This record gives sequence, structure tokens and C-alpha cells, in this order.
Amino acid sequence: MSVFALDGGLRAADCDADAGLLAGGAAGPAALRPLLETVVAALERGAVERGGPLPRGGPEAVAGRVRAVAGPVLPEVGAGAAAALDALVGVVAQGAADPADPLCAAHLHCPPLAVAAAADVAASALNPSLDSWDQAPAASEVEALVCRSLARLVFGAGRASDADALVTTGGTEANQLALLLARERFRERFSGRGGAGGVRGVRVVCGANAHHSVHRAAWLLGLEPPLVVPAPRGVLEPAALEVALRGVAGAPALVVATAGTTDAGAIDPLPGIGAVARRYGALLHVDAAYGGPLVFSERLRGRLAGLECADSVTFDLHKLGWQPVAAGFLAVPDAGVLRPLGHCADYLNADDDTEAGLPDLLWRSLRTTRRPDVLKVAVTLRALGRSGMARLVERTCAAAGELAELVRGEGRFVLYGEPEISTVVFRPAVGDDALVAGVRRRLLERGQAVLGRASLAGRLWWKVTLLNPLVRPSDLAAVVKLVEEAMEEGTGA
Amino acid sequence: MSVFALDGGLRAADCDADAGLLAGGAAGPAALRPLLETVVAALERGAVERGGPLPRGGPEAVAGRVRAVAGPVLPEVGAGAAAALDALVGVVAQGAADPADPLCAAHLHCPPLAVAAAADVAASALNPSLDSWDQAPAASEVEALVCRSLARLVFGAGRASDADALVTTGGTEANQLALLLARERFRERFSGRGGAGGVRGVRVVCGANAHHSVHRAAWLLGLEPPLVVPAPRGVLEPAALEVALRGVAGAPALVVATAGTTDAGAIDPLPGIGAVARRYGALLHVDAAYGGPLVFSERLRGRLAGLECADSVTFDLHKLGWQPVAAGFLAVPDAGVLRPLGHCADYLNADDDTEAGLPDLLWRSLRTTRRPDVLKVAVTLRALGRSGMARLVERTCAAAGELAELVRGEGRFVLYGEPEISTVVFRPAVGDDALVAGVRRRLLERGQAVLGRASLAGRLWWKVTLLNPLVRPSDLAAVVKLVEEAMEEGTGA
Repeated sequence: MSVFALDGGLRAADCDADAGLLAGGAAGPAALRPLLETVVAALERGAVERGGPLPRGGPEAVAGRVRAVAGPVLPEVGAGAAAALDALVGVVAQGAADPADPLCAAHLHCPPLAVAAAADVAASALNPSLDSWDQAPAASEVEALVCRSLARLVFGAGRASDADALVTTGGTEANQLALLLARERFRERFSGRGGAGGVRGVRVVCGANAHHSVHRAAWLLGLEPPLVVPAPRGVLEPAALEVALRGVAGAPALVVATAGTTDAGAIDPLPGIGAVARRYGALLHVDAAYGGPLVFSERLRGRLAGLECADSVTFDLHKLGWQPVAAGFLAVPDAGVLRPLGHCADYLNADDDTEAGLPDLLWRSLRTTRRPDVLKVAVTLRALGRSGMARLVERTCAAAGELAELVRGEGRFVLYGEPEISTVVFRPAVGDDALVAGVRRRLLERGQAVLGRASLAGRLWWKVTLLNPLVRPSDLAAVVKLVEEAMEEGTGA
Repeated sequence: MSVFALDGGLRAADCDADAGLLAGGAAGPAALRPLLETVVAALERGAVERGGPLPRGGPEAVAGRVRAVAGPVLPEVGAGAAAALDALVGVVAQGAADPADPLCAAHLHCPPLAVAAAADVAASALNPSLDSWDQAPAASEVEALVCRSLARLVFGAGRASDADALVTTGGTEANQLALLLARERFRERFSGRGGAGGVRGVRVVCGANAHHSVHRAAWLLGLEPPLVVPAPRGVLEPAALEVALRGVAGAPALVVATAGTTDAGAIDPLPGIGAVARRYGALLHVDAAYGGPLVFSERLRGRLAGLECADSVTFDLHKLGWQPVAAGFLAVPDAGVLRPLGHCADYLNADDDTEAGLPDLLWRSLRTTRRPDVLKVAVTLRALGRSGMARLVERTCAAAGELAELVRGEGRFVLYGEPEISTVVFRPAVGDDALVAGVRRRLLERGQAVLGRASLAGRLWWKVTLLNPLVRPSDLAAVVKLVEEAMEEGTGA
């Protein structure tokens, strides 16, 4: 008898008593219904109790309320599903910085579409895992279809027949994969060297405006720190890039450009950068985590001209694509470059299984177990279509243009520049960095608005990242008014 | 006027027309309700249409059905939310390998609890991102509480006052972080060397039974491939480890042990391994992605004796914890060892914000944008309590014991060994590896059962990974009968 045996053995009666435990199977939907209603009701109550874009009182007050409701985290005896959902979902909703509130506009932190959030439930309930076909027969095909479709959209008709994409946890992982692929591509090319020299031989070259994840990825991968090209105007200039590449001549290089910087939403001049990279034999990765979805819009996709020449592109639909996190992608013009990610684990992709027709999926990620984040994306694209996505992108970008006009119209502010996507950056005409930082924190502390901060051109600025497609003119006016009022307190004016 | 301006400008009327678009805010719950019902109904229909643990017909048939329903992936004009949800959730449910079916038992792929799947909706709807406080005021505190609580559970009362854990996408990322922390710890210790030597100096030593992700992580991080210690009995033996460590004497080493192998659910003898590692000044990481949740059970946690001496532990609740993916953790006995993950990005954790009391969260992951996967874990722990989790763990392990007895009772099978967790490994008494592989594929192709495969002791075996706490004695008998029938066809018996 097993040491694990239960007194009296495994009993069917215990299973009957626990009917309703699981989300899947034939009985799962009936079990889910009342629990989903408990969640929806708790979300509704939390939003009312919060009554604004974020909770009042700052970190200590919020943490105190959470501790009062959430503890003990692991009681000896459970509270039951309904009570636990009601308490914890309620306190997290009450204490959320809700991007669906137009005054929550600090970060690349979008309000998710209801259709996408609903689709995500199916991923949670069915729990397919994309590391082998026999854990995700249909979901793995949906992923393949969506990835190829998005890659074709990114690279355009001319270059897209073998284009593909990998699903990532976000732009950070996509950038990491791009650096890894470059490392391995150069390792192959210079395979005579091997060992440590081969790994560290690739040099990443990026602008000072590039995302911090590029630096973190180089560190993770054991590469030299990126060579940073000064970007005083907030973009990577081809002439400055050329100077840098000349300086590392001979070394295999990966140029990282940005289409939509985190600080200002600026788009690097991709055609010029591409030309320089080609001239020096460097690979080009474009981090279009933010700006990429402009490709949905016929009117706006011209802003990304040159993107189609990249060797890899970070593309993200949990920013300007209104997906719940995570919905990142790394797109490549030719699926063959993904070969270095190939990996064998006998229990998942044994040769004889692959030869017998079971698809090998393990090369599609560095993760093993992997949730089908692509399902909500597939549902969203089907629900809205290209034109529906374009309409939301255009409306969001237009809102930024209108906010910029409002700010420019006020004599008390300096606008950093015309928004290129949906980020508006400004600061007081009179006042130092401490005033900017203080106003932002005051608005947070009071639960009035979530504004961002950006360090640009040697100064600190307020950053309003508009990602809410339902923002109204009155909301834009409210942002300006809140900043003005908090600024007056700060200066004693 | 902005180049992005819409004809006629931003109009409040357009927002009114799109009410119901977003999942968040005060209006979100009302928008979600009917869409969630559409999803639940599609899940219900899909389960009925499937009528078993997985769809019939194998990869090509399933892919064909998906393509017929899912294409075109990106239509010019959208189909609307309800139609898109109904079609895509329906086809993914119909084509799922559903772990809630007791005959789906190949992988460490668990059937999620209804309460956890329901809680996950709140994460999707509110979309908190855990890279800064102002994107996740309450969710970040929930994460901190759960992580400390689980780390205390892993390391026990004696060693746990500073214990903490990081949330990961799964065991693979947790193992990756463990190797990274070891790399950086030794880099600090041998900082005089710096550069490439410092990075590659750490040597990973693991058993032949360790998870493939250990090898992939070493490659990712630019480390030498792990030194593999033979494990003919399926576990890492202290004596063999000692031989290996003696062979790399002088090099900084990280020993990786496993508490719950993927192939057989075997638990390495941790006390002996810990003693050897200490003697040789090596760090010890234990990959307890599978076996870790035995700590919930007073009866079974003794199986993990020695775990509390590890320098880091991979712990995962999307295996023996019934969470939807992802619910991984890396636990450490002292939060101070996580310091190398510290990272500054001015827009997320500027010094003046941190000094003013806004929590710095960026060190808690290598990801930037990050979903609160911890919310469903918090709700589950509260709902079931320690005793409820223990009951499910014990029942699942007991089922494996009963299946092993059934198999042993049949003269036609050889049992690999007594299950140590919930994996039962067996093969035909007469028959080669091709028969084992063929039977498994035949059951998959027909949609009858999802069984796994394991290469152990030079042979191929069937692997039944029991993770369904509602499995009944009759289900166990059905597994054996299906294998027998398919085997008879395979041998023509």
C-alpha cells in the first residue's frame, strides 16, 4: 500500500462532494457562472468605492486597507470561494489605478477591451499550455495563425511570405529575444571563435532614448553593455549612429531603434537608420512596442515607414491594442531566423512524435508551460477587424493632439513637442523639477490623477500617456485643470 | 493642428456610441456580464462537442477545423464581440486537451480551480501592472503578502523571517532566475576578475534527471553548459554529486536538485545533497516546481525534508496547485539575495519617488509590464486554506498510489517504481519502445486519452501524471483498460 494512501482509499463520494471545484470539463461552466457574477459584482463595488482613477491616501494607506482585508493570506481553514473572491477582488478593485478612468494616464498601461478580458476567461478555464500539441491542440493553431497574420501586417506584403512572430510577455521579453537571436546569429557566423568570445562578441548599439529593457537584456545574456548613442533630440539620428558604428567597426553589431519611446512617444527615423545599419553590416531591431499598432491605420502607418526593413520588431498589443497584459510579440521577416530557439525535451517533442506529425512547439518560446495569451488577441482582431482597430488607434492619437493644443494654449506651460503617437509631455514655464515631481505625487496621494514623469533634455516633465480611446474633450480639460491647481498649491501662488 | 486630428475633432458622441467597449471603470462590469455569459456558453458547447479528453482526428484534423472557424484572423470589418467570442472560444474549447477530464493525464498540466479562473478575470479587467505602484497600488501589496507567506511555508519557521519569493511565468523562469542570481552572486564574490570570466565562472551542476530548463537557462545566461551527474536510478545521488564537485574544485558552483522530476515525479535526497553542497561551498537550488506543494500537507511535507536548507527554491502552483497558468515562484530564504535584480528606470522608480515613499517594484521581475498572476493565488489560498490545499494534494497523491496498484496487479505491465508524488510510469512487460510510442499516439489520434511518455533507464515508458483531484477509481481503471486495448491492436494480439 502506498505511503500516500488515504484512510479508506479514494472515494467517488468525495468527488461528488467537491462537484463545482474545477473550471473545466462538462461541469466547469456551471461552476464558473455564479463565481463570475461574484467577481463582476466585486469589481462594480470596488469602482464605486474608489470613485476615481486611483485610491486616496498613498502607499501606506492602500497597503493598510489591503492587509486588513487580505490577511491571513493562508488561513488554516478556508473561507470558501465566494467569500474569498468578494473580499480580495473587492479590495484590489477599490485599490486599483484603473486605466479605464481617463485621468489614469501615466504609463503605457491601457484599459482593456471588455471582449478581450472576457476571452481571457476561456484561457484560464481551459488552461491550454502551448509547449506541446497534446496540451493545446486547437489553441496552438490559433497562435500560429495570429502570429503569421500580425507578422505580415508588420512587414507588409512585399516581404512577408515567411514572416512569423513569437508571443511574449511584453516588449521587455521581445527585446530580450531579439538580442538573443542576434547573439546566436553572430555566434554561428563567427563559430570559429566559440566560447566566451563568441557570446560576448555581439555589440548592441542603441540610442539614449531606447527602453531600459535593452540594457537589462544585454546584462541577462552576458553581453557587453550596449553602446549608447547620444540622442539629444529624443530620437536616434542616423548621422550619430554612423559615428558609433564606425567606432566599433569590425565587431558584429545589433542596432536597436525605437518606434515610440516610453518617455515621449517619439519615433526614430527608421529609413535613415536602416540605411546606415545596412551599410555597416549591422542587424536592425526595432522596438515598436508602443508605436507598432499604427500599422492598423491606413492614415497613420506611414509614420512607421522603414519598419519593414528590420530584422526583428517588438510589437505589443497590451499598449495601443487594449489587451489585458500579456500580449507581446516579436515579429521577424523570416521564420528561419528563429532556429536558434530550437530545443529538445523528449517528453514534449521527441523526434519520433515530430516525425509522426505531432507539431513541435517548444521553439516558440523560452518558457515551457505557457498560457494562450493569443486567444484574447484573436478574438479582438476578429471582433473589431482592421478598421475597428484603426478607429481606436486614430481616436487615441487625435486625443493627444487635442491635449497638446490645450497645453500650448495655456501660457503657464511649455510643451515638449508635438505628439507623435499619444504621449503629451509638458512642464511649467516657471518652476523647477521638484515642482513637477511634487505635483505628480500630490495628485497620486489624493487619488485625483495618475500622471507620468519623463526626464528629457535635462529637465523633468509631466507625461500624459493617452491610451483610453473613450477619452472626451472634457477629460483633457480636467487633466490640465488638475495640474494647474496642484501647481498653484506647490508654488503657493 | 495635429497631423493626427480626426475630421471634426474628438467627439463625446463617439464615446457614447462605444459605451461597453472597456472592461474597467464604473461601466466595465455591465459590459462584461453578457460577454462572460457568451464565453461560458461557448465553453459548455465546446465540451459537449468534444465529448472526451481531447478532440478526435489528430493535428491536421484539428488545425483544419480551427482554420475553418478562425479565418480570416484580421478581417477588414469586425464581426462584433459576441460573434467573435462564440466562434473562437467555441472552437478552442472543442479542440482542447482538457485537464479537467481524468483521461487527460500526460503532463504537469493541471485542471484549474473554478475559483482561481474566476479570480483571474479581475486581473484581466482591471489590468494592474506590477512594475510600478501607480499602476497597481493594491495588487502590488497583495503580491508582497502572498510571496512572503509562501516563502515562509517553503523555508519553515526556523529560517523564514526574511524569506521572500518572486512571481514567475513558471518553473522555467524560476530556474532561470536561480541561475542568474548564482551567476551574479559569484560575480560579486570574484569581482576582481570582471568581464567575461566573471560571467562564465559559475558552474551549474545538476543530475541527468534535472529539467531541460536548467540547460536552456545556462545557455541563455551565457554560462558553460551544466555539468551533468549521471542519475541511473532517476535521482541525483549525494555520492555521485560529490565526485562531480570534486572534479570542478575551485570553481564556484551551483548545484541544482529536483523535488519532483518531470519524468517520474522522483524527489532527490535533499538532506544528503545539501550536506555535500555545503561541504564544497556550492550554492543549492531546488527545483520543486512539481513537488513543492507537498508542503501544504502535514502528512506529506516530510518528503521534502532538506528543502529548507536551499539557497533558492522553484515553487509552482500551476501544477500541484490547480491554478491557471501562470503561477510560478522563486522562493529565497533571505530577500537580500535578490539585490542583483535591482534596476533603475527613471519613469518607474526614480530616486526621489522612492524616497518620497512610492514603492520600488522593478526588482521583483525581469519583466517590466507584468500581470498580477498572484491575485488568483491569493483568492485560492484564502478560499481553501492550508487544510483545503492539503486535502487536494493528498487525494491526488493517493490516486497515483491506487493506479500503481492497479498496474502492478496486471501481469502485462512493468511498473517503473512506487510513485513519490502523483506520477505513475509503466510499460508493457513484452513489447518495445515503438509499441509504447505507438499506443500513446493512437490514443491521442482517437481522442481517447492524453498519456505522457518518459525515457527512463534506457527504455520508453507511459507516463500518467495525475493532477486531477476529482479522479475516481473508475477513471483509473479506464486508463488501464484503454492502454490494454490499444496495446492489443498494436501487437495484433
